Amino acid sequence: MNDAYERARQAIEAAHGAKDALGAASASTRDAALLALAEALEEGADALLEANARDVEAARRGGLAPALLGRLGLDGRRLAGMAARARAVAALPDPLALGGGARILPSGIRLEARRVPLGLIGVVYESRPDVTTEVAGIALKAGNAAVLRGGREAEATQGVLADILAGALGRVGLPSDAVRVVTDDAERGGFKAMMESDRFDLVVPRGGAGLIERVRREAHAPVIETGVGNCHVYVDGAADLDMAEAIVVDAKVDNPAVCNAAETILVDAALAEAALPRLGRALAAQGVRLRACPRSLALLRSAGVPAEAADEADWGTEYLDLVAAVRVVEGVEGAVEHIRRYGTRHSEAIVTDSLTAAERFAAGVDAAAVYVNASTRFTDGYEWGLGAEVGISTQKLHVRGPVGLEALTTLKYVAVGSGQVRGTVARRMARVDNQPV
Amino acid sequence: MNDAYERARQAIEAAHGAKDALGAASASTRDAALLALAEALEEGADALLEANARDVEAARRGGLAPALLGRLGLDGRRLAGMAARARAVAALPDPLALGGGARILPSGIRLEARRVPLGLIGVVYESRPDVTTEVAGIALKAGNAAVLRGGREAEATQGVLADILAGALGRVGLPSDAVRVVTDDAERGGFKAMMESDRFDLVVPRGGAGLIERVRREAHAPVIETGVGNCHVYVDGAADLDMAEAIVVDAKVDNPAVCNAAETILVDAALAEAALPRLGRALAAQGVRLRACPRSLALLRSAGVPAEAADEADWGTEYLDLVAAVRVVEGVEGAVEHIRRYGTRHSEAIVTDSLTAAERFAAGVDAAAVYVNASTRFTDGYEWGLGAEVGISTQKLHVRGPVGLEALTTLKYVAVGSGQVRGTVARRMARVDNQPV
Repeated sequence: MNDAYERARQAIEAAHGAKDALGAASASTRDAALLALAEALEEGADALLEANARDVEAARRGGLAPALLGRLGLDGRRLAGMAARARAVAALPDPLALGGGARILPSGIRLEARRVPLGLIGVVYESRPDVTTEVAGIALKAGNAAVLRGGREAEATQGVLADILAGALGRVGLPSDAVRVVTDDAERGGFKAMMESDRFDLVVPRGGAGLIERVRREAHAPVIETGVGNCHVYVDGAADLDMAEAIVVDAKVDNPAVCNAAETILVDAALAEAALPRLGRALAAQGVRLRACPRSLALLRSAGVPAEAADEADWGTEYLDLVAAVRVVEGVEGAVEHIRRYGTRHSEAIVTDSLTAAERFAAGVDAAAVYVNASTRFTDGYEWGLGAEVGISTQKLHVRGPVGLEALTTLKYVAVGSGQVRGTVARRMARVDNQPV
Repeated sequence: MNDAYERARQAIEAAHGAKDALGAASASTRDAALLALAEALEEGADALLEANARDVEAARRGGLAPALLGRLGLDGRRLAGMAARARAVAALPDPLALGGGARILPSGIRLEARRVPLGLIGVVYESRPDVTTEVAGIALKAGNAAVLRGGREAEATQGVLADILAGALGRVGLPSDAVRVVTDDAERGGFKAMMESDRFDLVVPRGGAGLIERVRREAHAPVIETGVGNCHVYVDGAADLDMAEAIVVDAKVDNPAVCNAAETILVDAALAEAALPRLGRALAAQGVRLRACPRSLALLRSAGVPAEAADEADWGTEYLDLVAAVRVVEGVEGAVEHIRRYGTRHSEAIVTDSLTAAERFAAGVDAAAVYVNASTRFTDGYEWGLGAEVGISTQKLHVRGPVGLEALTTLKYVAVGSGQVRGTVARRMARVDNQPV
């Protein structure tokens, strides 16, 4: 194996060795670490911006796409945001303070559910350096150690961030190995080391569909899938058209590059003639290019709205851009059927004033979040009051929707008895025959 | 691919196609299906016992180990237990009735967490036919479709059970494909089809460590690991010796073949001289063979208790038999260190009257369940009041400890607004700069 693999392997072992100290740290120590991180970011601003400028320059020369360059670049304002975020996370309630309740079992044993950190978390992401401090902060707040693999393009920036994180941890008496930053090489040795490791209690991919799929297939540790959002807005026959227009435009245009943006607009056949020209014009006015099914194409063109013909691939595409697919469907059942086929279980919206249609949509669509008369853009840890998030889970186990602090914890059941044994208990309790023993 | 692969693939598709009908079924329909299953088991008893006798005979001729033969065999009493279990699960509260609460977001959106079925569940297990109806019943109760792959040895029995299940579903108007039983061939084509499928919302292995590890590595779907239990009882210096003896014997002897049985007894050096001969005698009197560390070996032998020398492999072995490893450790810290190294995060017990020792043990040990003065044998869905269980989870995501009905459900967030869009909301809310958007 190559150097990056070996370095990552060592970083994982070191972070694993530090995780018990993190788990035992008090809430005030964990919060102090976050405040120290904010301070260290401000103190290290010059070194960080200088290293980042080198990364950006190298990436520019290497021909990195402008969108990725934008994510890679730091400036004073972004840096201030990173520090502000660490302070905001420090101010959140301690996710470990709230237990899962206690009860007395028939055997007389008192069973208490304690909330404890997951342990060691791995996060695999792309070039954004601000993700490094954000994810580190959330992991620390919940008492976890973390190994963070950022993009190769951010190598110099990540190196300075690693020093800043280690310094902040050391300043409050926590092991500096509790958060380790790994940068990768062209052979993805670091990625491979993380996928093969059995040390992680959780691995989270943050990035595009390809990265997520690769992590899902290769990681030995449990994975929370995040972020692929082929989201829909369905405009029902009973929709208020003003509301529909506002929601469709917001869902598509407010920030098209993110996972909770809408990709396809579904319009009830019953309303298509009235709604489509208006929705199409509103989207086109915001620079959105339309890819339409035959019926909507005809309606749009006859209203003078520019549109192209959609093909099958459009229904499954997460454009992440100012492009929208448009399709006429037969009522709420048609919308549900389309979304079942092409949706990614992220966020789906219906605009309607019909309670029946709203209920059918909410019951029929399989997604983390179903919106009735609101934009898909609200699926967000901040909007949902979680205060911070690692991403949006599109799977069904453990956490659905925004992955907040609580999702980075688990329960430990502590059972206190007074000498109970099962053999005698079993004899005195009437039990269904043949139950698993 | 072979026939078993293709048959399993078709069964998965069929069950996937039936899952929405299950998810939409009312609690009374789901309960009616369970009652119909109980009746169908009773009505089909003769056919079932006849098929099972053929399986047992073939397995005997094929040289199946006696323990596995015991698990494969059905008789009238076991069959009555299977029917009773289905009725008991029908009588449990509906796990979908209890939602996850609702709240109003700052945007004015009302966010309601609804409890919904996971969807399609795959369970992979070995030869026990009673697992088939038990797991099917739990899956159905929680509104899920299921594909169940039992052992090859049970092929004839599984065939009759498949008919019984299909008949019971049909009798209450549910699709008979909602539960499909798959038996495998020598090339494990059915297993492979289940591992490669992207249709499952959850795959649960029930069986030995080898099966679990294979599923964990090969399944494309999320997995809940269950059942590997290298459990310990630590007898602390401050233990009551009567209580320690009762708990150690129960944990080892009550049912040594199950995952919550103890495998290693750890004894505090401070109490070793007084405790070890007594514990050793009590275990030996129950037919337990002891594998002891040098210090405990000397103490046991000088007290006339037969024991062999343990080696490193003993500490990591789940004997599932009347064998116990014994080790002297230096107080609670020594016990915690041993368990951190060799434990499988299942169930760990301490016997002590010291609150400090109990707390150190509970905080230091990483396990689903930590017992203070009670036997590890209590980690069980029935003892914990869950009414039914699929297994004991030894992982940290989604569910820890007994996997009951609620673990086979997830939340769906339904957000009801009145036209909210994020763009305008964002403008009127003061927000931390640079937050994920």
